[in-house]
Amino acid sequence: MIIVLKPNTTPAEMEHVLDRIRELGLKPHLSQGEHRTIIGVIGDENKLQAEPLEAIAGVEQVLPIMKPFKLASREFSKQDTIVTVGRVKIGGGAMAMIAGPCAVEGAEILDEIAGHVKKAGANILRGGAFKPRTSPYSFQGMGEEGLKILRDVGRKYGMPTVTEVMDPRQVELVARYADMFQIGARNMQNFDLLKEVGQAKKPVLLKRGMSATVKDLLMSAEYVLAEGNPNVILCERGVRSFEDSTRNMLDMSAVPNVKGQSHLPIIVDPSHATGRPDLIPSMACASIAAGADGVHVEVHSCPEKALSDGPQALLPPRYAELMLQMKKLAEVLGKTISKT
Amino acid sequence: MIIVLKPNTTPAEMEHVLDRIRELGLKPHLSQGEHRTIIGVIGDENKLQAEPLEAIAGVEQVLPIMKPFKLASREFSKQDTIVTVGRVKIGGGAMAMIAGPCAVEGAEILDEIAGHVKKAGANILRGGAFKPRTSPYSFQGMGEEGLKILRDVGRKYGMPTVTEVMDPRQVELVARYADMFQIGARNMQNFDLLKEVGQAKKPVLLKRGMSATVKDLLMSAEYVLAEGNPNVILCERGVRSFEDSTRNMLDMSAVPNVKGQSHLPIIVDPSHATGRPDLIPSMACASIAAGADGVHVEVHSCPEKALSDGPQALLPPRYAELMLQMKKLAEVLGKTISKT
Amino acid sequence: MIIVLKPNTTPAEMEHVLDRIRELGLKPHLSQGEHRTIIGVIGDENKLQAEPLEAIAGVEQVLPIMKPFKLASREFSKQDTIVTVGRVKIGGGAMAMIAGPCAVEGAEILDEIAGHVKKAGANILRGGAFKPRTSPYSFQGMGEEGLKILRDVGRKYGMPTVTEVMDPRQVELVARYADMFQIGARNMQNFDLLKEVGQAKKPVLLKRGMSATVKDLLMSAEYVLAEGNPNVILCERGVRSFEDSTRNMLDMSAVPNVKGQSHLPIIVDPSHATGRPDLIPSMACASIAAGADGVHVEVHSCPEKALSDGPQALLPPRYAELMLQMKKLAEVLGKTISKT
Amino acid sequence: MIIVLKPNTTPAEMEHVLDRIRELGLKPHLSQGEHRTIIGVIGDENKLQAEPLEAIAGVEQVLPIMKPFKLASREFSKQDTIVTVGRVKIGGGAMAMIAGPCAVEGAEILDEIAGHVKKAGANILRGGAFKPRTSPYSFQGMGEEGLKILRDVGRKYGMPTVTEVMDPRQVELVARYADMFQIGARNMQNFDLLKEVGQAKKPVLLKRGMSATVKDLLMSAEYVLAEGNPNVILCERGVRSFEDSTRNMLDMSAVPNVKGQSHLPIIVDPSHATGRPDLIPSMACASIAAGADGVHVEVHSCPEKALSDGPQALLPPRYAELMLQMKKLAEVLGKTISKT
Repeated sequence: MIIVLKPNTTPAEMEHVLDRIRELGLKPHLSQGEHRTIIGVIGDENKLQAEPLEAIAGVEQVLPIMKPFKLASREFSKQDTIVTVGRVKIGGGAMAMIAGPCAVEGAEILDEIAGHVKKAGANILRGGAFKPRTSPYSFQGMGEEGLKILRDVGRKYGMPTVTEVMDPRQVELVARYADMFQIGARNMQNFDLLKEVGQAKKPVLLKRGMSATVKDLLMSAEYVLAEGNPNVILCERGVRSFEDSTRNMLDMSAVPNVKGQSHLPIIVDPSHATGRPDLIPSMACASIAAGADGVHVEVHSCPEKALSDGPQALLPPRYAELMLQMKKLAEVLGKTISKT
Repeated sequence: MIIVLKPNTTPAEMEHVLDRIRELGLKPHLSQGEHRTIIGVIGDENKLQAEPLEAIAGVEQVLPIMKPFKLASREFSKQDTIVTVGRVKIGGGAMAMIAGPCAVEGAEILDEIAGHVKKAGANILRGGAFKPRTSPYSFQGMGEEGLKILRDVGRKYGMPTVTEVMDPRQVELVARYADMFQIGARNMQNFDLLKEVGQAKKPVLLKRGMSATVKDLLMSAEYVLAEGNPNVILCERGVRSFEDSTRNMLDMSAVPNVKGQSHLPIIVDPSHATGRPDLIPSMACASIAAGADGVHVEVHSCPEKALSDGPQALLPPRYAELMLQMKKLAEVLGKTISKT
Repeated sequence: MIIVLKPNTTPAEMEHVLDRIRELGLKPHLSQGEHRTIIGVIGDENKLQAEPLEAIAGVEQVLPIMKPFKLASREFSKQDTIVTVGRVKIGGGAMAMIAGPCAVEGAEILDEIAGHVKKAGANILRGGAFKPRTSPYSFQGMGEEGLKILRDVGRKYGMPTVTEVMDPRQVELVARYADMFQIGARNMQNFDLLKEVGQAKKPVLLKRGMSATVKDLLMSAEYVLAEGNPNVILCERGVRSFEDSTRNMLDMSAVPNVKGQSHLPIIVDPSHATGRPDLIPSMACASIAAGADGVHVEVHSCPEKALSDGPQALLPPRYAELMLQMKKLAEVLGKTISKT
Repeated sequence: MIIVLKPNTTPAEMEHVLDRIRELGLKPHLSQGEHRTIIGVIGDENKLQAEPLEAIAGVEQVLPIMKPFKLASREFSKQDTIVTVGRVKIGGGAMAMIAGPCAVEGAEILDEIAGHVKKAGANILRGGAFKPRTSPYSFQGMGEEGLKILRDVGRKYGMPTVTEVMDPRQVELVARYADMFQIGARNMQNFDLLKEVGQAKKPVLLKRGMSATVKDLLMSAEYVLAEGNPNVILCERGVRSFEDSTRNMLDMSAVPNVKGQSHLPIIVDPSHATGRPDLIPSMACASIAAGADGVHVEVHSCPEKALSDGPQALLPPRYAELMLQMKKLAEVLGKTISKT
């Protein structure tokens, strides 16, 4: 931690700052420059975390030099974490190919879609049973009935499943049916929910919030890890921006950015990021070239009749074609698509 | 709803679009231009809400022309809604002056702060017992103990209270102690929580999410209203932006923007919006001139010892001074500060 | 300047960093902590400005502690700068009320508008002769003919004039006719243009770029000041954001933010910031309460026939009404509207 | 164009709107719905471009349905444009590999860098002689001397050259020495400069502005095309965002987004987009997988002594390694790297 004092700080003010630091059991280290005095604080920076040092008279700036997350940090583990969902490995060169409809809408249609994506090479089946919808008047998901359908179809095709959980009260129910929790972008900082899935011990697919920095995302992962659940997979799915021709802005650099700072796997969801089927395939390919540990794509056999986010779904033949391209890229880059 | 067809749509594709519209019991109305064909859809636009029309072959764009919220809309009520918290009226010319520390940290310190803000003219006491913190290692709030202290201090000074609720499971508990729920920015789209406070019937202070548009904010209010709770107060508290010298960017125009579209009261929180005590007073004054129905300010007698967000708190004397200025502005603008 | 070294920096790497600092005639000051080593650099920080220290092996972060602008800084002048345009004073409690159409479209219509705004109390007349338009097919302004009309109408009503200059080659021409240059948002970092108006010695109204931080704005002012022209007035006119119901997002906190860091006057342009006549009046009032040194409003007697940005113009009666409100606020806040 | 009327528009107001449309030689087409009346306007939408229809009483919304650019549009040319710089072809499957230092700093160092990048496989040499710097006190470039050095070194290695032009007055000078103009992000909407390079007939590398939408970028290209210069190459180089760990946010989806709407080639500059050498290689690879027509990378043999943007430059060996990876990807994707 570095503390920069204002140009006209009095000696008494400076002493007061030094006292506060010593009270916390830390050692201040003074550098007096021509224009500014700076104080380096030596010791456990975390003790200062909750301290509102900037509120002290005479303090101009407080500059943390340590990262605020620990268990999620690359320093904590040099080796890439590999998360296992069913028999699918994610991370360390193995990729998750998650596909399926936005929402579970019925057994027959899910069975049809699952058959297609499995054949194309997808290894995890997705489908929402609880849907976060902007409007209270939109379809809110099939609930437990949807969870059952997802589990049954997943079993039939030998694919582990992932589905969103939105409420801490649903965690137990969802855990009974699905192989991986999804925490949606809107709930990335729903801290009670994060704690609850942290205690549930099943893998968690944590999506980046629409205005979350990479650091915020890693801090939210830290909430899950701190509860004892090490199986966190991060997901870049676009952030809010001024660009109005895409649903969100896909921050592709988040992939290597996360990998430099953390040992956790990160996948990309080009469907929610762009909201446009014409952009999804090239963004899926780019994600693999960027080093992502997987790609999450919405697929629907009849997007125009989908009950949720139909327009952004790929048709099964387009997905199969994309998968061929992704496999070629994976091969060149020495990555493998995990078996189910 | 207006549907724009692509330039080279076939007659069969066009027929298919028209059929889909008629299937929903709506009436399509065709306009064929030189370069594009457009279809106006007449009837209840809400029927089309969940319809992924953009996924239909031949459709280029779907343009809704109705606002997606109803109960929150100005069309629903020409008259400004006045929400009553304790005996404090908010809206229709009456202003809430909410003040207090970020977090409840103990009975003594809260009593001291409450005494100061009450004397200065604040009419609602705030203080968090459950705190959403970016880091799992930061102070998470005093919980029920904090709620009790807040209630007791509020009673002593005759001030109704507001405190954050983060988890649907806490709603009942919080309702037992506080006069108004606060839904924080991070939970603006925590839809299960919105439904829960919608059923609880106590007033709700709904803060704008960090990347929420004004429309998103009104849609979230609609979730509460749709459950039968009409007592919603909106709060502008800044959004994420590229500007790095303030904590968030205060979108002052949200005040008249909301008032044009909705009958609900809206207040401003310059403390979280700017994160800087040197900017808070002028932003508080500007909020009143912009037409806000109240101002929410964090006040702490010792910001440097506060357990949460200390640096952004005003000292009691600065708050008292600000209140004098705000009263003068209120007077000129024909507004009143509600009595407790 | 503070330099933070990576955790595993070798002694040789550290020595190399120290050598580079000494080569620049500066004095490094070492603090070795538990987890990181930091180097405080003492001496003229500007020497390090152009130095890519972050590229040196072993360096993790470089943290400047001095502001990069000088002549624009509050440290350079404790006293507020007062800029004089014609006889109108701006800054130090005196406010500019700039009004007029977006573009000069003809003598008759400008005369009509000028008569209205002068009567309402405006003290500076605006109107564009060179228009930066997104489309090459839109009206690009009347050029010199427009400049003449603006000058003549300004003289008739005794109002100094301001008009945009977009090209360094136009500076001399514009200087011949107008009393103040306007540098538009799109040209805030057109550095050759800034240098040119810096040499021209007439007052400069410098608008904030659409993605410029407050620091960027002050750095651009520094370009003008560094050429010897001290007459710079800053203008907040909204920045790009994800909010799609307003043209830009008005960053009201830029007003006190600039005033804390700089002695230069700052005004607000709610017309371009919001693009919506229904929001302009309340944002104009809020600007005054925020401490702005003036307000810039587009006024047109027939917005629907305006050749540029008609929809965001106020009608003259609405402007007159707004001016009454602004005068009342100015009075309460101890500000004056400068005489022409 | 579609015009939506307000719910309570009077018949007289509606007639007035219809009259305005007819006055422009266009045909209005009325659809009266339950809640709203909409008017489809048939005929040349461009006639309405400059018309402030939204300012007419009774009008709620004006929705354009045609794209505002023409010469840049995919409708104008189904076939990909191939731009030739020296003998290097860009577009239609052929890729530009632009490399070199941020600024030309001297003959010797440029020669050294050029030797390295040429050997690695780069086909165009870059280097700035006029530098847009945020601070007036930073190195502003070597000017004509730098242009000469760039030309000479380019000739020696048989590489065409690209360099930035910032001022319309420099266009002729720059054209004398360089093979392609670069218009920097800060000047993307410097319309006089765009017109000037449009008349100069040499290829133009047009970088996306920091807050420009894809549509804005294409409108700026339209300025160059409209002057008769068809040789425009677009460049994605990141936009401003709230993410503070990268210099800008690389909008990778701009690549397929542009390609869907326009026939012009588009390349990616991961150096300016991320500002971080640790992220550049994976973003360069991702760009190729996304379908970019080239990659622009800053390379310097001694980033720590570079006079401009040193920290974001790759070292020559890292660039050579990256080029091997990019060649493998290009091969898999059926792209070629153009010969010099």
